[in-house]
Amino acid sequence: MPRSKEAAQANLASLFRIFTVPEAPDSTLGEIDQAISDNLAGFLQEHIVARERDLVEIEKDFADASIPDEPTFVSDYTDFLKEKLVAQSVHTAAPSFIGHMTSAIPYFMLPLARVMIALNQNLVKVETSKAFTPLERQVLAMLHRLVYTEGDDFYRQWIHDSEHALGAFCSGGTVANVTALWVARNRLCGPSGSFRGIAREGLAKALKHLDCEGLAILASRRAHYSLGKAADLLGVGRDNLIAVETDRYNRLDLVQLRRHHQRLQDRGIKPLALIGIAGTTETGNIDPLGQLADFAEEAGCHFHVDAAWGGPTLFSAKHRQLLSGIERADSVTMDAHKQLYVPMGAGMVVFKDPTAVKAIEHHAAYIIRRGSKDLGSHTLEGSRPGMAMLVHAGLSIIGRKGYELLMDLGIERAKTFAAKVATHPDFELVTEPELNILTYRYNPAWLQKALTGTPGKTGSDINRLLDLITKEIQKRQRASGRSFVSRTRLIPPHGGSEQITVFRVILANPLTTEAILDAVLDEQSSLAADEHLQPLWAELRDLVSEGISAAS
Amino acid sequence: MPRSKEAAQANLASLFRIFTVPEAPDSTLGEIDQAISDNLAGFLQEHIVARERDLVEIEKDFADASIPDEPTFVSDYTDFLKEKLVAQSVHTAAPSFIGHMTSAIPYFMLPLARVMIALNQNLVKVETSKAFTPLERQVLAMLHRLVYTEGDDFYRQWIHDSEHALGAFCSGGTVANVTALWVARNRLCGPSGSFRGIAREGLAKALKHLDCEGLAILASRRAHYSLGKAADLLGVGRDNLIAVETDRYNRLDLVQLRRHHQRLQDRGIKPLALIGIAGTTETGNIDPLGQLADFAEEAGCHFHVDAAWGGPTLFSAKHRQLLSGIERADSVTMDAHKQLYVPMGAGMVVFKDPTAVKAIEHHAAYIIRRGSKDLGSHTLEGSRPGMAMLVHAGLSIIGRKGYELLMDLGIERAKTFAAKVATHPDFELVTEPELNILTYRYNPAWLQKALTGTPGKTGSDINRLLDLITKEIQKRQRASGRSFVSRTRLIPPHGGSEQITVFRVILANPLTTEAILDAVLDEQSSLAADEHLQPLWAELRDLVSEGISAAS
Repeated sequence: MPRSKEAAQANLASLFRIFTVPEAPDSTLGEIDQAISDNLAGFLQEHIVARERDLVEIEKDFADASIPDEPTFVSDYTDFLKEKLVAQSVHTAAPSFIGHMTSAIPYFMLPLARVMIALNQNLVKVETSKAFTPLERQVLAMLHRLVYTEGDDFYRQWIHDSEHALGAFCSGGTVANVTALWVARNRLCGPSGSFRGIAREGLAKALKHLDCEGLAILASRRAHYSLGKAADLLGVGRDNLIAVETDRYNRLDLVQLRRHHQRLQDRGIKPLALIGIAGTTETGNIDPLGQLADFAEEAGCHFHVDAAWGGPTLFSAKHRQLLSGIERADSVTMDAHKQLYVPMGAGMVVFKDPTAVKAIEHHAAYIIRRGSKDLGSHTLEGSRPGMAMLVHAGLSIIGRKGYELLMDLGIERAKTFAAKVATHPDFELVTEPELNILTYRYNPAWLQKALTGTPGKTGSDINRLLDLITKEIQKRQRASGRSFVSRTRLIPPHGGSEQITVFRVILANPLTTEAILDAVLDEQSSLAADEHLQPLWAELRDLVSEGISAAS
Repeated sequence: MPRSKEAAQANLASLFRIFTVPEAPDSTLGEIDQAISDNLAGFLQEHIVARERDLVEIEKDFADASIPDEPTFVSDYTDFLKEKLVAQSVHTAAPSFIGHMTSAIPYFMLPLARVMIALNQNLVKVETSKAFTPLERQVLAMLHRLVYTEGDDFYRQWIHDSEHALGAFCSGGTVANVTALWVARNRLCGPSGSFRGIAREGLAKALKHLDCEGLAILASRRAHYSLGKAADLLGVGRDNLIAVETDRYNRLDLVQLRRHHQRLQDRGIKPLALIGIAGTTETGNIDPLGQLADFAEEAGCHFHVDAAWGGPTLFSAKHRQLLSGIERADSVTMDAHKQLYVPMGAGMVVFKDPTAVKAIEHHAAYIIRRGSKDLGSHTLEGSRPGMAMLVHAGLSIIGRKGYELLMDLGIERAKTFAAKVATHPDFELVTEPELNILTYRYNPAWLQKALTGTPGKTGSDINRLLDLITKEIQKRQRASGRSFVSRTRLIPPHGGSEQITVFRVILANPLTTEAILDAVLDEQSSLAADEHLQPLWAELRDLVSEGISAAS
């Protein structure tokens, strides 16, 4: 055999090996795999380094834009991964990681996720997903029922109806929100008379047909940024996403809503959808959904509820009335990778009317043929993994009562934490938790007192300095790696119309104990006392004494 | 302790357990996990039942729309999963599953996917993804370089630039195509003078500003159905996705393109983008990309290449010239879950100009702040998993040369299969493979001969009957579970202007042997001879003899 042919055959043989021979249990990757199976928490604890390395430093390990010519041994690659990627990732499952909406996941999700990945189904069509198709339809029906509580007959009729769908499974809440508004837009501008509908003729012709100047989406100013993307994407325009003012509890203000609606009418702009939020991203507040439903009915527009975060509160007998009115929404977004405790990459939108998705239906010659049960005919995405299986597992294994416990636990813990913050002399509670999210800042008693009596410019100056301190504490706490809270900017419910920077805490990890919460505050207190912040504190003291002398 | 409190504490304890105690190795789920680790192929072979159960039957196992009240034991749930879901899923990794674009994945992907899921990072922002952010940027740069082959300096400048991005990582090719066209639309209708851009003012005002009647997207009629969705979603309208005729090799016809373009101009419609396809979904053909680039330049419109399937052909020294001209595209879509052999849920779009994504940039107060390196500011999706890690692993472990082997192998095998079909007396090759996709049908010699001399109505009647036979054979072959080819409808390159139904074969699994290909044809031959098809064959024989007597 000539040399080159020999080499080619050897290459081919090693190529086949990666498709046929599993990693040995004593290989580097095999060992990691086992370690994760045996003790996930221990693995993360051991392998993720706590202290933050600067991002610019990390980037050096990922700086080569060339794809390597030669294959790399799996063991060498795994070593690289362990040291450079895993070590420098974020310990999102840590009970002290209470700053974002990514929490711990139940242990059973890991082996089940492996089953899902091993099966590698494609949910766009039955031919590549078989039983996963009815499973996904069942999951959508379960969530639909959680929201709309229709009867058995309703679900018997619609759950597996090939022409319709109770919702769409998505990669996340953003695609879910976009899908809901896409449906809303296409229904408002559906075919009628000689107009063949916006899906075919486009937005400009739809406006002519409707005889209006534009379309608008109404949502509170605390709405998720994905709605801005949706307004852009759908051709509505971000200027036509009307940010309605909120009351002091971050809930959409109905008086302002009426005012905006009137202004739109005066300008010949048609409201396409009204959005209610069930759990604002920054403060966890819930819009007055029942009243919004009334308004949408009156205005004749689609009513969408973004319950990406707060949806699972419906599991709680104690708290579900907070979402009262959600059952009147035309569509509801819910994220499974948030409070259903599924790994990242699973969102859903459900539609009250199972025929709604007709407005975005599409077909092709080789798949999602008319009359087929292929899920792809009603989704924004095409090829998709079988994530619905993990939602199905969560709903089955944890059950309604399990989720209820999780929801109640989080809200209770948030109230406990809020009480700790409120009674602590050096902290200021900025927003009370309605669900399991709250905001606060470090603001020592002497300064809080001074601020109360110091409006106007000095008050603003004080807040600006406090903002710097809040930001510094948040960054340093994150960098130290013991715990993590996030930060945002908002107008506090009490006092002032200016935005301030606040810590934002989300209590969704059931393993977060009171001791951890105490430690978070202790660490923040000691970071606030750090030397490098002293110049800012000195400035603040000066401002306060000037304020006092000016007032006296 | 009172009874109810005791019960509540017990519930809480078991809730904590699912977050802290892994599945025991000898549990049902632990055993499955181990079985998949030890021998994936064996596990799939053993657990997926070959013979198809009717979908309506399967649906009965997923018919309950109620979320169970009480928790279920993981072991009970796993038993259900094994019998009802896994058994009835599709063996996409089987070497005889050659009908769709979902193939086997390398073994190392499974344990690595577990690492990814265990870390549960959220790529929307650095605070929940840390090193995953530079990793994803590196992956995008690697793919960018594969397409555009810029120099080291270029990548040094752009790879980690916080204000820009070389592309966007997506859940799949559909979102990638939508993102590309979103960018194209927003650049065409960018801010200028008093017009603040389509992103803010919406499509109708943009048309007024551009002084045109509408926007259009030009693509061959063999383009992927996701482009229709994009046209709908973006407000352009499906009617304005112009399906340009193709030549007999399913490649966009430039003469027809000019004609359509002229007609659009006459109607005052501006071309927003021209699409080139590198690997049509149904036949794997490649548009004349260089000539399309010339045309787009001349017409002043965005040139997007949908290389979701064919992109990795660039790894092959032998075949990469088929994609020549792709380096002139403004944007290119590539799916990692197709020919990069990554599990389902990974697509990408890369942009020639790293500033292009500015057109869809967005920010929020709590994440993706201006100047941050958060990936979320330039993606359609929000929260996303760390799938880029698996692409990184593939590119590193398999390397350019490994992917080259995979590409060459697939194309070679497709040519072998095409030759088998062409020389087999009872089959008709309909489209030759340009890449690794081909189409054909069962059409015995006597009938082929008769068809050649039988144009007009009788020819159509014959084709209609053959269509029924093709469909039946495809369905029965799928149901028997030994092998799987897909089917589609297309106009054959030789003869007629009517669509016919054909088998569609995709040869991307390196483990597909010649023996398997022979067996596929043998099975189809014997299915064609099945009793229940005899009435159709009898009709065909009658038609042929009538045709002959009419002609004589």
